[in-house]
Amino acid sequence: MNFLEERILKDGVVKSCNVLKVDSFLNHQVDIALMEEIGREFKRRFEDTPVTKVMTIEASGIGIAVFVAKELGVPLVFAKKSKSINIDGDVFVAEVESFTHRNKNQVVVSKSFLHAGEHVLIIDDFMANGCAMQGLISIVESAGATVEGCGIVIEKGFQIGGRVIRNMGYRVESLAIIDAMDADTGSITFRKQA
Amino acid sequence: MNFLEERILKDGVVKSCNVLKVDSFLNHQVDIALMEEIGREFKRRFEDTPVTKVMTIEASGIGIAVFVAKELGVPLVFAKKSKSINIDGDVFVAEVESFTHRNKNQVVVSKSFLHAGEHVLIIDDFMANGCAMQGLISIVESAGATVEGCGIVIEKGFQIGGRVIRNMGYRVESLAIIDAMDADTGSITFRKQA
Repeated sequence: MNFLEERILKDGVVKSCNVLKVDSFLNHQVDIALMEEIGREFKRRFEDTPVTKVMTIEASGIGIAVFVAKELGVPLVFAKKSKSINIDGDVFVAEVESFTHRNKNQVVVSKSFLHAGEHVLIIDDFMANGCAMQGLISIVESAGATVEGCGIVIEKGFQIGGRVIRNMGYRVESLAIIDAMDADTGSITFRKQA
Repeated sequence: MNFLEERILKDGVVKSCNVLKVDSFLNHQVDIALMEEIGREFKRRFEDTPVTKVMTIEASGIGIAVFVAKELGVPLVFAKKSKSINIDGDVFVAEVESFTHRNKNQVVVSKSFLHAGEHVLIIDDFMANGCAMQGLISIVESAGATVEGCGIVIEKGFQIGGRVIRNMGYRVESLAIIDAMDADTGSITFRKQA
């Protein structure tokens, strides 16, 4: 078991067969030392790739992605949900459905901050159905940039996202892959990874 | 002029008399080294206070607040806009109007992560009319915790927020206070601070 799986078992709460609360350390209250360790781990996994930019999507990906960007020594760009009056019309757009919030958002990245020839590592806290990741990938591809990989903190292995993104040919590194959860017992089954 | 004012003059773009774009380094693309410097500066300004927790509001505050929390060695809690199905009913709530997005949001913090007796430093990227800050302050006060101060990266000094919050008796430290902007010339007038 790695440091993240240990932390999930210690502080995660299984709310139902498909809802895991990790808001005491990951996506509401944030344990900074854990974020730094996650940053170092993604650096270790992706330092063989020529990453020039880390990308994530607001909001809960940001606190993780900044530490990955720090470790790799590159800027972060976070995609924004819904159009702000402060974003120019010149943006890449994708439509993303949120599993957690059960709604659709337009996700935008300014063309000023993503260019052809860039090498992008996409980071997010969760992957379930993979819609957010597909949206971010389509934005990177639209820019003529290269997706070097997708770094996920917690992948819900019992949902389709991981399989879809890997089948598209992208490298996905998930620090923890959950194959099953049981709300009655609180048990969590992690997929064994090499 | 401090490091932030210099950076605003170098890379900020005045879009109108009250809209400043800093999305190349602060709230869309993020310059990690600058975030670290901001973290160190807020530590310097607030290290005389017994801060036990840093609080911000999603989304663009997060990438700044994590580095303040890191410097101070305390956890971060970020308030969430709109109710997620993953947040329990047991939350502190405030209603906040967004100047940028021209809408109202319910802002929530779980009662699990904010307790009586805590000492909270509130961090945000911008302060304009101060609505977000007032919402966060009311959440901290509801919890019976103490607001040790408000750390703002860019305060729009020509809007009412800074005066309102200071008049309420809270300590506000803004790394840059803009008293005027001119879209025709692109000029920015910073308030002189001690």
